[in-house]
Amino acid sequence: MHANPILAEVTRGDTVESWHRGSFAVVDTEGRVVLSAGDVEAAVFPRSAIKPLQALALVETGAADAFHLDDSELALACASHNGEAVHVDAVEQWLARIGCTGGDLECGVQLPGDTKALRELLSAGGRERRAHNNCSGKHAGFLTVARHLGHPTQGYTRFTHPVQQRILGLLEQMTGLDDLAVQPRGIDGCGIPTIAVPLGNLALAMARFADPGDQPEHRQHACARIRHAMAARPYLVAGNARFCTKIMEVTGERALVKTGAEGVYCAAFPHLGLGLALKIDDGATRAAEVALGRLLRRLEILGEDEARRLADTLQPPVLNRAGERVGVVRPARDFPIQEVTGARGSV
Amino acid sequence: MHANPILAEVTRGDTVESWHRGSFAVVDTEGRVVLSAGDVEAAVFPRSAIKPLQALALVETGAADAFHLDDSELALACASHNGEAVHVDAVEQWLARIGCTGGDLECGVQLPGDTKALRELLSAGGRERRAHNNCSGKHAGFLTVARHLGHPTQGYTRFTHPVQQRILGLLEQMTGLDDLAVQPRGIDGCGIPTIAVPLGNLALAMARFADPGDQPEHRQHACARIRHAMAARPYLVAGNARFCTKIMEVTGERALVKTGAEGVYCAAFPHLGLGLALKIDDGATRAAEVALGRLLRRLEILGEDEARRLADTLQPPVLNRAGERVGVVRPARDFPIQEVTGARGSV
Repeated sequence: MHANPILAEVTRGDTVESWHRGSFAVVDTEGRVVLSAGDVEAAVFPRSAIKPLQALALVETGAADAFHLDDSELALACASHNGEAVHVDAVEQWLARIGCTGGDLECGVQLPGDTKALRELLSAGGRERRAHNNCSGKHAGFLTVARHLGHPTQGYTRFTHPVQQRILGLLEQMTGLDDLAVQPRGIDGCGIPTIAVPLGNLALAMARFADPGDQPEHRQHACARIRHAMAARPYLVAGNARFCTKIMEVTGERALVKTGAEGVYCAAFPHLGLGLALKIDDGATRAAEVALGRLLRRLEILGEDEARRLADTLQPPVLNRAGERVGVVRPARDFPIQEVTGARGSV
Repeated sequence: MHANPILAEVTRGDTVESWHRGSFAVVDTEGRVVLSAGDVEAAVFPRSAIKPLQALALVETGAADAFHLDDSELALACASHNGEAVHVDAVEQWLARIGCTGGDLECGVQLPGDTKALRELLSAGGRERRAHNNCSGKHAGFLTVARHLGHPTQGYTRFTHPVQQRILGLLEQMTGLDDLAVQPRGIDGCGIPTIAVPLGNLALAMARFADPGDQPEHRQHACARIRHAMAARPYLVAGNARFCTKIMEVTGERALVKTGAEGVYCAAFPHLGLGLALKIDDGATRAAEVALGRLLRRLEILGEDEARRLADTLQPPVLNRAGERVGVVRPARDFPIQEVTGARGSV
């Protein structure tokens, strides 16, 4: 297999201790590749990085309006959250509003990803519930769509359930691929199907999410609402000390960024009409984050002052257990940032 | 940079979702390379994978005898443990025996790595102490050597402290390198120095640990005692659900295996007179484990029956949050297992 380029490296002292290879594509709404590295035709499981696209169904079906969802719920539908009280409480209140409970969630339980939230839960004698699962907001969204359209709620995570089939169609339209139903499929960590999509097409979907001018009106409206919700409530999209939250707190709607498991990241840049998809070969989130940070700088979405304020986010220190800085996670020295020229680039 | 070969892959459904590159060397006591892949001359930080070598000082100085240490303490000195009560209690009792307390440990605190232990600690209103740090046994060993030789205990983690200097000399002898003092150095997660060693020399050190026949008598004795302690108390070397523990529970002294951070693994095979060192480029432990498992099969250290019993250890399932198997971590399809022939192989 041809090796993708090194995108991120981890140092200890003055030495590079580990490094991460990967691929990325930045694409416009016509599918033209603006920046890329590595194999962008390889299919990847988008995992949680496409939650903003899955959340479109919530708006397009009218379910969001019918149940009076606001930015909070829409941001949670896009979230891989920390399981902090602010996330869990909001999801459980939302479920109550649609006549469901945590027991209807089919995502399994998960301990809070945030150490402070973990301490609070366990030291109070609590146990993790399904609403603590980082995907609980997305699942509440699926349940809301099922309720609104009169589908059974049980089994809503199955590939053949009408909610998943609706989202499949939506993903086909956004990625420009009409055969996702027969592409390689896996089961995501939270139980729903995840379908392999070539990285370039994933970036195209994000470009269309950023600028859905050629999409039907109801989709344009849904994209605008989801983008607004993510930018308005970035803490609900992730939480304490999280990359997505810290970036969107600075960029607002200039960059909607969303992490996925196994080193995937998606981003949409409405003012540029561009979408981005990125995958680290080995699945490391630490590498996906610094690679995305490097691209946010390259695309001048983050200016110099903003980059300085976000220094520890864009190039996070490696700390020892005593809290001392002993290294750094940073973009690779030869990070590939050339613009694509000529005939190469089209999804 | 020339890419190391792919050693492990992670599937979801029928698709390879992520993959891990790396290098390894299996070396005899003369430094002849028996098996290898990738760049084995590249220097790596051995991290915790050389704890068994660091523990030799405890025996060689007479400190272990002076303080009546048994297999338990010697196994803990080699451990990256889970912070379970069995580990933490034993370390704190050991510290008391040498007139120290947890406050003398310079390793920083760490939450237990095992979920059950974490729950027990936090739900009882406890907080993590320094003895919970996965390296606390190694640090107790350093303190024991300092006490025995009359060195100050404070600052025992510093490169210039006599305990660290003694271990530096020991590592130079075992790796066959006499210039480790001027090699690239970093600070380990627990605060001690970690020094870059070419992978082949790390394997040589483990071969000599496996079969120290050409070493001075006191070292032969120390190697035998440490090997015996690891094999006798594998649970103390790691703990619940841990690769090191599960492998050594089966192999006993046929394979002494020790994990290190950032995807490093070392192993010693006394009956073969071989040592092994392995590094995953991207630092992933999941990949280091399955690559080592593949090599344990290749070297026939694990037979077919044993491999069957260890199936979920050698090729661990990827589970979703509901506990269903959705993929597997496994050796790469083209895992490089050719023997080294001809002139190539010597450290």
